Amino acid sequence: MIPGQRGSHPTHVTRYESDEAEQESGSQGRGSRLAFGLNGPLRSGGGGGGGGGQNVHSRSGGCQLAVVGVARRHVLLSKDGRQPRCVEGRRESGSPRLEVRGMMMEASFDTEESFDDPSCLASQPPGSVSPAKRQIKEVKETKATINCVTFPLPGEGPEQQLLKPDEWSYCDYFWADKKDPQGATSLPGFEVLLQKQLKGKQMQKEMSEFIHERTKIEEEYAKNLSKLSLSPLAAQEEGTLGEAWTQLKKSLHDEAEVHLKFANKLHTEVEKPLLTFRGDHFKKDLKKYDHHMADLRKQLASRFASVEKARKALADRQKDLEVKTQQLEVKLSNKTEEDIKKARRKSTQAGDDLMRCVDLYNQTQSKWFEEMVTASMELEKLEVERIEWIQQHLRQYTTLRHETDMFNQSTVEPVDQLLQNVDPSKDRELWVKENKTGEVRPVDMDI
Amino acid sequence: MIPGQRGSHPTHVTRYESDEAEQESGSQGRGSRLAFGLNGPLRSGGGGGGGGGQNVHSRSGGCQLAVVGVARRHVLLSKDGRQPRCVEGRRESGSPRLEVRGMMMEASFDTEESFDDPSCLASQPPGSVSPAKRQIKEVKETKATINCVTFPLPGEGPEQQLLKPDEWSYCDYFWADKKDPQGATSLPGFEVLLQKQLKGKQMQKEMSEFIHERTKIEEEYAKNLSKLSLSPLAAQEEGTLGEAWTQLKKSLHDEAEVHLKFANKLHTEVEKPLLTFRGDHFKKDLKKYDHHMADLRKQLASRFASVEKARKALADRQKDLEVKTQQLEVKLSNKTEEDIKKARRKSTQAGDDLMRCVDLYNQTQSKWFEEMVTASMELEKLEVERIEWIQQHLRQYTTLRHETDMFNQSTVEPVDQLLQNVDPSKDRELWVKENKTGEVRPVDMDI
Repeated sequence: MIPGQRGSHPTHVTRYESDEAEQESGSQGRGSRLAFGLNGPLRSGGGGGGGGGQNVHSRSGGCQLAVVGVARRHVLLSKDGRQPRCVEGRRESGSPRLEVRGMMMEASFDTEESFDDPSCLASQPPGSVSPAKRQIKEVKETKATINCVTFPLPGEGPEQQLLKPDEWSYCDYFWADKKDPQGATSLPGFEVLLQKQLKGKQMQKEMSEFIHERTKIEEEYAKNLSKLSLSPLAAQEEGTLGEAWTQLKKSLHDEAEVHLKFANKLHTEVEKPLLTFRGDHFKKDLKKYDHHMADLRKQLASRFASVEKARKALADRQKDLEVKTQQLEVKLSNKTEEDIKKARRKSTQAGDDLMRCVDLYNQTQSKWFEEMVTASMELEKLEVERIEWIQQHLRQYTTLRHETDMFNQSTVEPVDQLLQNVDPSKDRELWVKENKTGEVRPVDMDI
Repeated sequence: MIPGQRGSHPTHVTRYESDEAEQESGSQGRGSRLAFGLNGPLRSGGGGGGGGGQNVHSRSGGCQLAVVGVARRHVLLSKDGRQPRCVEGRRESGSPRLEVRGMMMEASFDTEESFDDPSCLASQPPGSVSPAKRQIKEVKETKATINCVTFPLPGEGPEQQLLKPDEWSYCDYFWADKKDPQGATSLPGFEVLLQKQLKGKQMQKEMSEFIHERTKIEEEYAKNLSKLSLSPLAAQEEGTLGEAWTQLKKSLHDEAEVHLKFANKLHTEVEKPLLTFRGDHFKKDLKKYDHHMADLRKQLASRFASVEKARKALADRQKDLEVKTQQLEVKLSNKTEEDIKKARRKSTQAGDDLMRCVDLYNQTQSKWFEEMVTASMELEKLEVERIEWIQQHLRQYTTLRHETDMFNQSTVEPVDQLLQNVDPSKDRELWVKENKTGEVRPVDMDI
């Protein structure tokens, strides 16, 4: 139990806070900074513990998220906790509205994307209960820290609404870590999203390979048709039949050309766009996301360790103060009273330390939370883009196939035409004119 | 000069004549016999030489023309030289009418083919001038024997009308031998026709080879497409995009099937009919034609040699008679008168011999003529059939090509359909449902 001392909260002078200050002053100078508020544990424990005026601890952090080629989104924590606003960048398809309940959020983009519909719902004012008014025991009953992340226990805390209901947004479903099937290790939810991206990239690459194979088959086919079309077979056929035959071979050449063109277009209009969409830098970008989120988790773990350590130190100090107070009751002395004073000061200092550590932990968790939302929405957008890109280029594939069939059909028509003109009588006339030996018939010999 | 002796014409008792007798008695027992009359040298020399009643020497020959798989035509020499008739078998296309001028002709078929339009023109009664009424000198001026075949000299003899005017029929244009470009050897006109047949057979074979090559290309193409369609590339793509991708691969398999079917049909419906139309027996048949005509030409040469020999013998006998007659005038004696009688008898006999030899020569030439007309018309018909057969099967080729393009087009449609259904939101929903780690968001830690 922390005695009812309200230690003066140490001024937050961290790197993040200085960033926050910059954001609070409205500076937009550094486009890649972001901050986000947690859904604060307001009115936790169903009215148990001290009520009264709860301070809203506006927490925000800022850091640089260096992502090449990806639109970066700034999510800024509003100073006014009771007026949460939500702004989401316009999306090319669907443009889902981000609804944020119980959190302060302001989103902006440093790309040319415009904003629309900045309104959003606000049901609960965010913030956290002043620790001095609550009992630790009570807190332990409503929250649990798993892998250094603090979650409300089932049935505890205010009901959470999805950030983006009806959208199955990544930002709503990957808060917990994923247990390994063996149960030994666990994978951060964000890693699951990253793996989806990597798999998507792989699928895109494999589709490109598939089209490449098709291209090669078409090239080979075209080469064979072309070669055959140049064969001298039956080149000596004469007359109208010879003409039809020559056209048949010529049409085969045209057919080869159609398939060669198909191959070329497949290469430039399907295979290459599928291959080069998000080049090698994409995996590097994902790695940056990965490292960034992992760093935040490490920081969170470190802050959590500090909290644990400070909690133990406070317990030790409180124990010491209790012992000394009991000693005072037994034999009153100046020396003891001086000790008690000292012990109380140390206990108060330990309480302040714990508060500072918890505050730092919460700041880091808040920071991680913000990055999670931002990054997962980025990945979600990337996935939509990937699917639409692939859809567009597979459509191009079917268009090219249709074209090929049509062009192919047109190569047969002149053959049909000349086959219709085949005329054995005419061919005989032509041949006889050229090869006749003599039309004077023999006559009987006279004696 | 042959003295005015009309030697009794020896009765024609040759193999051909017995055949002729059979034909004249209306026997149709042996279907493959044929006989034909020459365009006789009627009123040759522009009224020169003896006029008067000209006997018509009906000449005909019969022989067996063994041609397998070919409708055989009987051309029979009419007994009534002044009522030439012409019957030609119905042809599937064009059905040209055979007009025979100045020759007796009757045609019949031993196949089930029906006859139509048996009428034909008759402008000149056929037959040949009785040799006894002409002077050899005169004959020599109006006719020339080239390679043992006797032709009227240019401008001599009655004007010859084509047997089948406006048809460019083989039977009208290959009477002379073809001079080799080097001029050394000469090729019978009939050989030119045979070479055309051989070339036609070769063209047909080469077209079949061409289609075979195309078949192989299609098979290879189908094999490659099919193999690619079974590739596992991007098989792990999920959701609606995954469905479209799976359909794209399935459609590739269908496309492969279309090309395989095309290949199979090309093989059975084009390549094979082109290859097997007139099998190996065809060349043997042509060889039989060849040998038959060559034999007739050899026989003609032999008969021509006999004529030359008989002509020389007659000249010798005439010289002998002349010498002996002159001796008689100088010293009359019984012995000499007996010699003259003997010499006159021998001269008469030599005259008869010559007449018999000329008659045999003319018979053989007539026989050759008939065979030439019959065989060249056969070959002409074979060529029409060949062209129509090829035309028909190249048409089948274009039909199959059209079908292939159409079937191909239909394989793309289900891909188009599923590409239209691709929906990034739905895909996200499916994936999130399956892969989400937890939707409870973290909260601030309390002290």
